[in-house]
Amino acid sequence: MAPSLELLPKSVEPVPTKSVSTISNGSSLKFESQEKHQRVLNVFRAFIADLVQQYGDGHPGSPMGMAAIGIALWKYVMKYSPTNCNYFNRDRFVLSNGHACLWQYTFLHLVGVKSMTLDQLKSYHSTDPDSLCPGHPEIENEGVEVTTGPLGQGIANAVGLAMATKNLSATYNRPGHEVVNNMTWCIVGDACIQEGVGLEALSLAGHWRLNNLCVIFDNNNITCDGTVDVANTEDVNAKMRATGFNVVDVYNGDWDVEGITNALVAARSSDKPTFINIRTTIGFGAKQAGTADAHGAALGVDEVARVKKSFGLNPEEFFHIPQDVYDFFSDIPARGEALESGWQSVVAKYREAEPELAAEFDLRVAGKMPADWTKCIPRKEDHPTAPTASRKSAFATTDALGQNINSIMIATADLTPSVNVAYKNRVDFQSPDLRTACGLDGNYSGRYIRYGIREHAMCAISNGLAAFNKGTFIPITSTYLMFHLYAAAALRMGALQGLQAIHIATHDSIGVGENGPTHQPVAVAALFRAMPNFLFIRPCDAEETAGAYTAALQAKDTPTTLALSRQSLTQYPQYSSREGVLKGAYVFTEAEGSTGPDDFDVTLIGVGSEMVYAVQTRDLLAKEYGLKARIVSFPCPRLFEQQSREYKQSVLRPRAGKPTVVIEAYPANGWERYADAGVTMSSFGKALPCKDVYAHYGFEPKSIAAKVSDLVEEVRRDGIGILRGDFREFNGPLTIGAHH
Amino acid sequence: MAPSLELLPKSVEPVPTKSVSTISNGSSLKFESQEKHQRVLNVFRAFIADLVQQYGDGHPGSPMGMAAIGIALWKYVMKYSPTNCNYFNRDRFVLSNGHACLWQYTFLHLVGVKSMTLDQLKSYHSTDPDSLCPGHPEIENEGVEVTTGPLGQGIANAVGLAMATKNLSATYNRPGHEVVNNMTWCIVGDACIQEGVGLEALSLAGHWRLNNLCVIFDNNNITCDGTVDVANTEDVNAKMRATGFNVVDVYNGDWDVEGITNALVAARSSDKPTFINIRTTIGFGAKQAGTADAHGAALGVDEVARVKKSFGLNPEEFFHIPQDVYDFFSDIPARGEALESGWQSVVAKYREAEPELAAEFDLRVAGKMPADWTKCIPRKEDHPTAPTASRKSAFATTDALGQNINSIMIATADLTPSVNVAYKNRVDFQSPDLRTACGLDGNYSGRYIRYGIREHAMCAISNGLAAFNKGTFIPITSTYLMFHLYAAAALRMGALQGLQAIHIATHDSIGVGENGPTHQPVAVAALFRAMPNFLFIRPCDAEETAGAYTAALQAKDTPTTLALSRQSLTQYPQYSSREGVLKGAYVFTEAEGSTGPDDFDVTLIGVGSEMVYAVQTRDLLAKEYGLKARIVSFPCPRLFEQQSREYKQSVLRPRAGKPTVVIEAYPANGWERYADAGVTMSSFGKALPCKDVYAHYGFEPKSIAAKVSDLVEEVRRDGIGILRGDFREFNGPLTIGAHH
Repeated sequence: MAPSLELLPKSVEPVPTKSVSTISNGSSLKFESQEKHQRVLNVFRAFIADLVQQYGDGHPGSPMGMAAIGIALWKYVMKYSPTNCNYFNRDRFVLSNGHACLWQYTFLHLVGVKSMTLDQLKSYHSTDPDSLCPGHPEIENEGVEVTTGPLGQGIANAVGLAMATKNLSATYNRPGHEVVNNMTWCIVGDACIQEGVGLEALSLAGHWRLNNLCVIFDNNNITCDGTVDVANTEDVNAKMRATGFNVVDVYNGDWDVEGITNALVAARSSDKPTFINIRTTIGFGAKQAGTADAHGAALGVDEVARVKKSFGLNPEEFFHIPQDVYDFFSDIPARGEALESGWQSVVAKYREAEPELAAEFDLRVAGKMPADWTKCIPRKEDHPTAPTASRKSAFATTDALGQNINSIMIATADLTPSVNVAYKNRVDFQSPDLRTACGLDGNYSGRYIRYGIREHAMCAISNGLAAFNKGTFIPITSTYLMFHLYAAAALRMGALQGLQAIHIATHDSIGVGENGPTHQPVAVAALFRAMPNFLFIRPCDAEETAGAYTAALQAKDTPTTLALSRQSLTQYPQYSSREGVLKGAYVFTEAEGSTGPDDFDVTLIGVGSEMVYAVQTRDLLAKEYGLKARIVSFPCPRLFEQQSREYKQSVLRPRAGKPTVVIEAYPANGWERYADAGVTMSSFGKALPCKDVYAHYGFEPKSIAAKVSDLVEEVRRDGIGILRGDFREFNGPLTIGAHH
Repeated sequence: MAPSLELLPKSVEPVPTKSVSTISNGSSLKFESQEKHQRVLNVFRAFIADLVQQYGDGHPGSPMGMAAIGIALWKYVMKYSPTNCNYFNRDRFVLSNGHACLWQYTFLHLVGVKSMTLDQLKSYHSTDPDSLCPGHPEIENEGVEVTTGPLGQGIANAVGLAMATKNLSATYNRPGHEVVNNMTWCIVGDACIQEGVGLEALSLAGHWRLNNLCVIFDNNNITCDGTVDVANTEDVNAKMRATGFNVVDVYNGDWDVEGITNALVAARSSDKPTFINIRTTIGFGAKQAGTADAHGAALGVDEVARVKKSFGLNPEEFFHIPQDVYDFFSDIPARGEALESGWQSVVAKYREAEPELAAEFDLRVAGKMPADWTKCIPRKEDHPTAPTASRKSAFATTDALGQNINSIMIATADLTPSVNVAYKNRVDFQSPDLRTACGLDGNYSGRYIRYGIREHAMCAISNGLAAFNKGTFIPITSTYLMFHLYAAAALRMGALQGLQAIHIATHDSIGVGENGPTHQPVAVAALFRAMPNFLFIRPCDAEETAGAYTAALQAKDTPTTLALSRQSLTQYPQYSSREGVLKGAYVFTEAEGSTGPDDFDVTLIGVGSEMVYAVQTRDLLAKEYGLKARIVSFPCPRLFEQQSREYKQSVLRPRAGKPTVVIEAYPANGWERYADAGVTMSSFGKALPCKDVYAHYGFEPKSIAAKVSDLVEEVRRDGIGILRGDFREFNGPLTIGAHH
């Protein structure tokens, strides 16, 4: 059945797309008839309408609009295997407009992914906590490469997936042995090319000439607020061309399966990444078609019935997929199995021809690090004893990892000179065709990634690298801790998805100094300390940095931020312990001259770059006030909370009349769990040299010791502990009003 | 002295720019001689080199490279008054590459801004806490429109400043009475056009056809990591053209003051925003010129001397500005005063011709709201009593503000149908030339801003609106709370600068429901609760929402987030209090049947959208366990911390044997200050209907009551309070490892 003309978007002429009759492997594409396509489209769209109508809520518009794109991808173009969605060399598919998830779920069902039953599809928006069809695609579920929904993230993930393929191909493929050569397909809506993170990622894809990436623009011209032109009137194609993409137009995206397919197939042989601008109609077939009303609401019972009728379907049948539609996709499982077994034979031959390389490749496919990775962590006796910035201490590990382990991809957002991550003998990840003016060229086997000034894309793309195949890549990013705020949404997505990544965040406090409050993170840590599945670790010296790096490398399902100092830090070889870091907190030192665990007057909590103030305060308390202070080092509350109650109490040792004081140049928020008082920040910082800015905000042993002594006296006098709600912030509460 | 050829960038042909000989008001530009320009350039560059060399640290490269742009702007193009940097109709200037601040500071000195003395300039990077020359420009200081440094923010602020002019012009100008017509000039480096927030903002500037915005691209082709092409090889001009800009090239940016000036002047009469691509040489004159080495490090004592010599200056003279260079700028104060007094006469005539409009205009210039703004807040008796989502409750105020107060600019990031901010009779802020396909047109007097899906630019541009002139605009933004993470860096810049803005953040918890964990904020609040000068308020019903809005409108130097529910909330007219919200927390209700302040067994802290669980638990505790529970409502810890110790203790009422339990669907972090235990989130959420997802995570009165009862029993039995470090998270500690 041909589409009725009234259902075609009125503004678009049905211009035929350029015909492409072969796919890259030379075999001819055999299309089913246009009538058959139309039949599948009708059934698919009616089915989506039913699914959303069931609970009266969800997103019908995009799935209905993208139906023909789906047939092109899942029936004709993508290389994948429904019986093993995770086979290594599969094409990756990312639905960056994640709210269109029903589209993906339904195709997974149609092509024969076993777990995606009809009942599962019907569990969309239900009360089933084990549904495989949540409101946005989730990485845990079969056939989903990355969790999407927050817009712009998916396209950045897709760039990371395409980079992963490029890097693996350049590293492991040999003439006659193409063990990795998959494509990455990514559907974006308007939002993903408005969001900054999407624009950053697209710019990088163009720069890197990722011709294995195809971005499919579901150009339905509608967002929640109306037509796109209420907020965007740029020339998208021209912009994408300027960004380094091959741009292809498809005008009849609602039904021209052949045209879409041809455009997609052509992307496989492009010398640049491809951007296919496909005009579609949101909610195609419904009376809400082409309007924002079709986006995020059910169509209505009557309208669903009318849609079915107009499609020649029985309005009394619900969630109905006739056998002929299943038949249309029935060749796909076998085709997928052939693809996978073909790849298996390629790898088998590769193992014979290149045994050494293949051994490493197999390890990568298995997601494993070389067994001796722990050698990359410096031994305690190798640390320098002179004051050393923790950004420098971390370099010992970064350098060894970068030099020795191919799964490590090390990146910076244009801060190579400042963050100390540029390892020896590194090769940049670049297009081999690139010739830079400064001579910093590279190739795709390079593992040093220069993201430019794009922190958000750096972290979102890293999620894509990590998601390519669990453990095959461990991305390491680097920037200033302050700029974690630029990347916060991507860092969260890494935590939500359980993707390992290591984020080197230097310049971690007001210790930044002269660059001033714009660059001095104060509140940033609070976000990551409260974020599920995120490790935020502040080591105090080289030994703790070694511990922090170990924790990060061991955390296979968790991203970690290492918060490191710009300034030099005193080293404490007599106190500091990597094992202590792995427990989150530990007794750094008992009070000097202490005769037993209860022989102390006050506990000081020292954290990361501010540990020096705890140690100096302890000394002054002994010398000037005759008070015994013990010190707890507290690099990571999250790890500490995983320990037993006994361990926690043995470290904290709460005793009546013996207060605990935390010293950290961040707000107190959260430390109230462990401490009665704090030398903490109540405002933003100031542009002053490091030592001066600390002193300006009360981080000075003399004044801290005096305050601690007063507190000890008060607590002894009153004979009670500090009351709830009476936490003492020596620098006052967090401000309201401008900071000066 | 003509520049020596070897100092010119080699790759660039000295193509003359198109000559523009008049400025928009018709008067001819009279240039000083090229020799004079060269003399000023030499002195300026040597002076910058001295300033950075003084403390051996800072950013010399961009200020030296941008010297000629500076002469063009400060001597020939910009309309401003050094004797009153804040005169209302001045051109706004934003240095988006804020690390080049010495450039701005030095020009402020040269043109005669009194506070910017030579000694002040020399205090750059010194230990002076009152320096007017911090490492990045700060809004508090004379002549600085916005604090910049975090890259991409400044250009977004500039878009906001240009919008402010457009809106004021369209609202108040009348034929013959142009009371507002200033330009906004913004210098960007490479970073600002790589950062996503910059790209979002530029896209909007093009869409809105802000022809009063001129973006000056300091195209020195260098970033920290090397030449720009290591991370960016796009066609910038083509991209900017596609984005809706008029693009102009200047090839000899190192010395061609006339060419630069002509290009800048032409921007005043463009019909689109203008992007001037000016090729410059970073660190011009030094041996490090044209390389990343010139960016962020002093040139070295010997090199500074050599630079001076090569410029024909005395290497033994430091910080030396000869009289003839001062003379070059000596006409500017008088010119500025004439501009200001000219504007004053325009306004005086306007007051006569348009007294009513002028009265409002004067109020806006004074930064004041109409005296009766409080009428926009609904009275207690006007609230609905049926369950109502707080996103809907807030609408009563938003609607009244939008309809009645011209300083209110209400915005959404493409979520008009969901966030309830689209006030009645609104007019969209749009170019009057725009004709959208859906009919949602507007004009520049419109105050409803459609940002598209660009949360970061929305918040950064709002900072620019707020910074135009304190109080002239109060921007209100709206999106889902989750997407505050996209905008976090801009929200922080608003707090740092003390700029009032109201951020409507709906869908504030797992209560989001079916859309699942990608859209359910869990850790977001922790960031803003820890951020200096930020109010994060979660009201529990319509009355508290009225209080929260009042607090936000009263906070003239502080941004506020109103965290509002998607789901319907029970209303508590018998308990809730707007005055209580202004104090941050208050006694919501004493235990039923309580005979005095000490007659209770447990205190429950109820927060925002989860208040219902506190109230239902209280009832169950009474009914099933015979326990008396009082409830504290706690919408804003920050406001609470401003209260007296007496008030705080009277609300919290800590008593031995009577625990306090907080109930909030966020992590516990920070609540340990007030509570002994919490029903809180330890993981990300789940895609389930609202009620089910709450229950799934233990937000269910029955299970809460049982746990609270156990806790009361334990505390009574042990006869002590909860120890430090022993805070009870009923849902366990924050997770490590993927959330399922």
